[in-house]
Amino acid sequence: MGEPILRLGMIGGGPGSFIGPVHRMAAELDGRIRLVAGAFSSDADRSRQAGAGYGIDPTRAYASHQAMIAAEASRADGIDMVAIVTPNHLHVPASIDALKAGLHVMCDKPAAISLTEMKGLAGVAAGAKGLYALTHTYTGYPLVREARALVAAGRIGKLRKVVVEYSQGWLSTALEQTDSKQAGWRTDPARSGVGGCIGDIGVHAFNLAEFVSGAAVRELCADLSIMVPGRRLDDDCNILLRFEDGSERGVPGVLHASQIAAGDRNGLRLRVFGTESGIDWSQETPNTLTINGLDGRTEMLHAGAGNLGAAARAATRLPTGHPEGYIEAFANLYRDFAAAIHAGAMPADLPGVEAGLRGMAFIETAVANSAARAGWVRLDV
Amino acid sequence: MGEPILRLGMIGGGPGSFIGPVHRMAAELDGRIRLVAGAFSSDADRSRQAGAGYGIDPTRAYASHQAMIAAEASRADGIDMVAIVTPNHLHVPASIDALKAGLHVMCDKPAAISLTEMKGLAGVAAGAKGLYALTHTYTGYPLVREARALVAAGRIGKLRKVVVEYSQGWLSTALEQTDSKQAGWRTDPARSGVGGCIGDIGVHAFNLAEFVSGAAVRELCADLSIMVPGRRLDDDCNILLRFEDGSERGVPGVLHASQIAAGDRNGLRLRVFGTESGIDWSQETPNTLTINGLDGRTEMLHAGAGNLGAAARAATRLPTGHPEGYIEAFANLYRDFAAAIHAGAMPADLPGVEAGLRGMAFIETAVANSAARAGWVRLDV
Amino acid sequence: MGEPILRLGMIGGGPGSFIGPVHRMAAELDGRIRLVAGAFSSDADRSRQAGAGYGIDPTRAYASHQAMIAAEASRADGIDMVAIVTPNHLHVPASIDALKAGLHVMCDKPAAISLTEMKGLAGVAAGAKGLYALTHTYTGYPLVREARALVAAGRIGKLRKVVVEYSQGWLSTALEQTDSKQAGWRTDPARSGVGGCIGDIGVHAFNLAEFVSGAAVRELCADLSIMVPGRRLDDDCNILLRFEDGSERGVPGVLHASQIAAGDRNGLRLRVFGTESGIDWSQETPNTLTINGLDGRTEMLHAGAGNLGAAARAATRLPTGHPEGYIEAFANLYRDFAAAIHAGAMPADLPGVEAGLRGMAFIETAVANSAARAGWVRLDV
Amino acid sequence: MGEPILRLGMIGGGPGSFIGPVHRMAAELDGRIRLVAGAFSSDADRSRQAGAGYGIDPTRAYASHQAMIAAEASRADGIDMVAIVTPNHLHVPASIDALKAGLHVMCDKPAAISLTEMKGLAGVAAGAKGLYALTHTYTGYPLVREARALVAAGRIGKLRKVVVEYSQGWLSTALEQTDSKQAGWRTDPARSGVGGCIGDIGVHAFNLAEFVSGAAVRELCADLSIMVPGRRLDDDCNILLRFEDGSERGVPGVLHASQIAAGDRNGLRLRVFGTESGIDWSQETPNTLTINGLDGRTEMLHAGAGNLGAAARAATRLPTGHPEGYIEAFANLYRDFAAAIHAGAMPADLPGVEAGLRGMAFIETAVANSAARAGWVRLDV
Repeated sequence: MGEPILRLGMIGGGPGSFIGPVHRMAAELDGRIRLVAGAFSSDADRSRQAGAGYGIDPTRAYASHQAMIAAEASRADGIDMVAIVTPNHLHVPASIDALKAGLHVMCDKPAAISLTEMKGLAGVAAGAKGLYALTHTYTGYPLVREARALVAAGRIGKLRKVVVEYSQGWLSTALEQTDSKQAGWRTDPARSGVGGCIGDIGVHAFNLAEFVSGAAVRELCADLSIMVPGRRLDDDCNILLRFEDGSERGVPGVLHASQIAAGDRNGLRLRVFGTESGIDWSQETPNTLTINGLDGRTEMLHAGAGNLGAAARAATRLPTGHPEGYIEAFANLYRDFAAAIHAGAMPADLPGVEAGLRGMAFIETAVANSAARAGWVRLDV
Repeated sequence: MGEPILRLGMIGGGPGSFIGPVHRMAAELDGRIRLVAGAFSSDADRSRQAGAGYGIDPTRAYASHQAMIAAEASRADGIDMVAIVTPNHLHVPASIDALKAGLHVMCDKPAAISLTEMKGLAGVAAGAKGLYALTHTYTGYPLVREARALVAAGRIGKLRKVVVEYSQGWLSTALEQTDSKQAGWRTDPARSGVGGCIGDIGVHAFNLAEFVSGAAVRELCADLSIMVPGRRLDDDCNILLRFEDGSERGVPGVLHASQIAAGDRNGLRLRVFGTESGIDWSQETPNTLTINGLDGRTEMLHAGAGNLGAAARAATRLPTGHPEGYIEAFANLYRDFAAAIHAGAMPADLPGVEAGLRGMAFIETAVANSAARAGWVRLDV
Repeated sequence: MGEPILRLGMIGGGPGSFIGPVHRMAAELDGRIRLVAGAFSSDADRSRQAGAGYGIDPTRAYASHQAMIAAEASRADGIDMVAIVTPNHLHVPASIDALKAGLHVMCDKPAAISLTEMKGLAGVAAGAKGLYALTHTYTGYPLVREARALVAAGRIGKLRKVVVEYSQGWLSTALEQTDSKQAGWRTDPARSGVGGCIGDIGVHAFNLAEFVSGAAVRELCADLSIMVPGRRLDDDCNILLRFEDGSERGVPGVLHASQIAAGDRNGLRLRVFGTESGIDWSQETPNTLTINGLDGRTEMLHAGAGNLGAAARAATRLPTGHPEGYIEAFANLYRDFAAAIHAGAMPADLPGVEAGLRGMAFIETAVANSAARAGWVRLDV
Repeated sequence: MGEPILRLGMIGGGPGSFIGPVHRMAAELDGRIRLVAGAFSSDADRSRQAGAGYGIDPTRAYASHQAMIAAEASRADGIDMVAIVTPNHLHVPASIDALKAGLHVMCDKPAAISLTEMKGLAGVAAGAKGLYALTHTYTGYPLVREARALVAAGRIGKLRKVVVEYSQGWLSTALEQTDSKQAGWRTDPARSGVGGCIGDIGVHAFNLAEFVSGAAVRELCADLSIMVPGRRLDDDCNILLRFEDGSERGVPGVLHASQIAAGDRNGLRLRVFGTESGIDWSQETPNTLTINGLDGRTEMLHAGAGNLGAAARAATRLPTGHPEGYIEAFANLYRDFAAAIHAGAMPADLPGVEAGLRGMAFIETAVANSAARAGWVRLDV
């Protein structure tokens, strides 16, 4: 409570942006960070227009992140951190510039457009004064953190199987051929990188599976498809996984993600099975976590309840039964990042450079493996 | 977007408050209101301490709402509105003082500790410059608004039956005999008024039923109980209802609410049946609305989906499948109130003085009727 | 296994009957009872036609239950028991005739058309050689039996509240003015008695609440309505309850039942709350039982699982996860009745004369109380 | 109704059998088939003991299926059909003997222990007088048939993706090292064939996916594991699929099945996505079918409702809201088979020889492919 409020500059998030306003709400929700500046658009007028929408001083709405970084550096009340909410191809350049300027970086995912590019960023980050975090938003849900803690504490026994899925239907039609800004850049290799669905949501599923299971994917066998005629990037992904557990063959898993699963909304679901029990969590009903035991009993945990562990309890603001959602999960990342900044170090459960490297390796490996149709491949960073 | 940001002063919400921080988050979520002052506690030190937690200027943390109103009135950047988040017995005095000072009032529910007191407030509000709104939070959920719109548009046909329930279990033990601040004032007639469970949550259920059905309760027959030994106010309520529809006997309904329903969380659920279909909504899974039709088909609507009506669409910030919760519903009330302030008039779907009068009449009538155990009574304001 | 197969004669269940074939399937499911005769219709041709459908010997399809009882008594392989599946007004006459002939009786509910008539039957049954059981089918579900056992074993602590509901929509229109045989007799006082919805399904809800809670309703305050114009019996019921627990005011409860809840199917649900936890069961998803605890934890039990108690385990035929439904629940009553017949005594958890008396008292008391609109009344048998 | 009741002889199903009694209940449920004989065990005493449990004449309990077939052939009231409920390795020999004797065969799945063996059976069946059906039980659920009909009628548009899963946890421990008869033969290659989990439940999932989607799997890439130390057959399966649609790459799909998914019960779930909508069905809640549309609307269909298609309506016995389950689904196969026998031809929606061939090809191909870890392989029969 006694720490100063951090000043945030946004990069991207201009008129029509979905994720820019979400970052603003999430960053400010707990009163520890305030959006004060932004390079919302490369068009100066549009940047000012966006800035007005966010309620910031017009003189602090810039036409480039370089200009923002330079100008803010000369102010006594200049920004402490940036939120990068552009299409993917700008993530790394902006991150590097910000880190080099001594700023902290909260970057949207995926971290980069290639593993090589991400490795460059990792080098910069290693020597930087500022911290770097990645918005794998779903790790911010209280019951995801409970799940991770339960697995780590041995509640499910030894890991046996992982099933993770992320099913959406909003790209079932060629939306990118309309004026949809969201669909446009996500299906454009120049702005998204080599991955479509796998880069947009598959990587969330991958991250979530590793985050909760505590195990790393070591091999995969991928089948990516373009199902909508004319589309240039994958819109459906089905991937066999093997997680590292020190054994010869590892632990089996499945990841399936889609943006052409007609009628599905934002169907991220994770199941992790061990020798003793299995846990099950779904993003659309995020405030319950189900644990099925070998004895035939199902236990459901509820966000906000007093019987949860410390990590989950710290991640809610309301009594049990009062739903918190996506914005609050997102805000948990910002709140933790603010605490990390004050503490000078990243906590283990906040995705950062390592998650970025692994995510990019996953995307690239899966895309290449699917194209080759040649069976299994190691996932190396 | 072009409207100035409104400046908010909070009354109540000191250290240990649950609802104060919720008001702060809700008010600020959309960037149209900012908390700048507060009379958080009658203890000056505690008020300053709370103010620091909210991130406001220490000189604007006052020890009484009277002091805040006076001091802020003399500032060029003084508050435009107040949020009243005290125990019930202070709602009306603070509301009246604020309205008389020309401020807008967002008051927590129930509006008063008696119908008489509320009528006094209604008189003041009628002549005031400021607007008055009441935080019947659950009316802020997008699918509650969709339900109201569907009923108004005839989707269920002619009204046939209403079932509303609000089931909690957190007062199953004599929590008020511990140091629980929340339980303490809610079970104390001096601070809560004549209603316990009925005033704390029963009135929400009542309001929701009238809000969605569009029909007014005209008669009731109540059975209120104190189930936890030593408690002074009801902790369980079961009430038969008749809604006005112009017919001789009206439309039947049931309201049951409890704070001793062991293990229940925040189980507010509303079902409204007509001649054509029935709708069903539950607060713990607020992002779906179920409509069952005479033909045997069930339809589920999802918050954020493009097929919803205007009121529901305006009440979401995220794409479908990205859960919004209690804070966002609450924020919808604040956002609408900000718009009302700029427009100079209350919209029909924002609870205000009328909801306060009806709610107080409901509480008092039910308490008296239950005590008499004499059958049906009219609900008159 | 070693017991002889019981021979069953059906009374009622002619062409167009819904419940007749259900009784046949339920009675025969476990191979311990076989339908061998029937007085399916008072029209001899129709009775033979129905008999052919059931696959029985044409010479054993009779035109009256009196004829069946007489003829079967003279056969070495004559019937041991009857199933009475007629409209309500024939339940008691047929039951009495069968009991007087030394046969066992499985009668559909409600047991009679009046409490007086039921008392007459009770007198006959008291002196009869045959046993008498009543098809309160829902008590046959394994998890209803588990719920009853858990409550009896103290799992929920001391009883605090009961909420039971039975919501259907199939009589939302004046179906009785079409050729619907089912709707016809159910809305006809001559064949149904004084209760419509309350006699058809309200009494199931009442029975289930007493069966599981182990407590008897001692007072009620009822509001019954006829919502469909022209209908002669109630189609909607909302009732405040007080259960006996030895205290001055008893334990509060609510029962609501409807046949005009548009779009609802067969929504029987029971919640029983105690000082320690609350249990929740719904007939449309009968294979799970939910227990919510004061600590915020929810436990779900699954039919067929090894962790259930003896009564529930005895009531399933399949491994967990293989759904059993209404027919199997019904079959549990028949199986238990067969065992009771072999044992010569009724078990405590099989509804019989006492349930019939209480059910008729409930129906009559509620109907009269609602008409008087005079507050609370004792429920006396 | 006018057709004679068919006489059934059971092969297998001796003391301790789970599936034998299920076949008996299913076969007899609708009164069109009666179990009259059996070769329940190769031990004559145990066969008689089992026969007594089933309530059949002791002289018709045989010690081998050959003996039963021979003896029954000489009776005027001899059996018309057999139900084969042995471990897998006896399925084909018994089927062939029965078919050669002119009997109809209802065989449990998988049809054989190898594709070669199954091809032998197919040859015999092609020239036989009797019909041959395979108990892919899950195709008997009314809403599975509705799903198939909806897909065939174009409700989902053009096929885009299939996700099918079958998740159980009952073999999470080395149950085969206890006295569990069920676990024993299922994990024994001599009695089960080359497939463990894939032969026991994976093949159900495969069959269901093809049954509902109307599309055939043409390629697969499998990852089968033995997760419980000491086990000899796979207990976990994850398989990438491509369905035939005439296009170059086909339609993507995923099948995952497990018997070591700790805590899972009988979690068979199918999702089929098209260009217009997606359908979703789960075996543990079989009486609802969910359809999600591109417009954001979800529709749920309920078994027994009047708005369903003819196939689904024909497959229920009760009004909507009265759950039917696994036994009733199973009984639908028997009822349809009885009708097929009377009609002299198999209907398209009753699994038979073709389903047996495809299932065995699936099992063998997946097992071999997984062992090779070499990418994709065609599924050829």
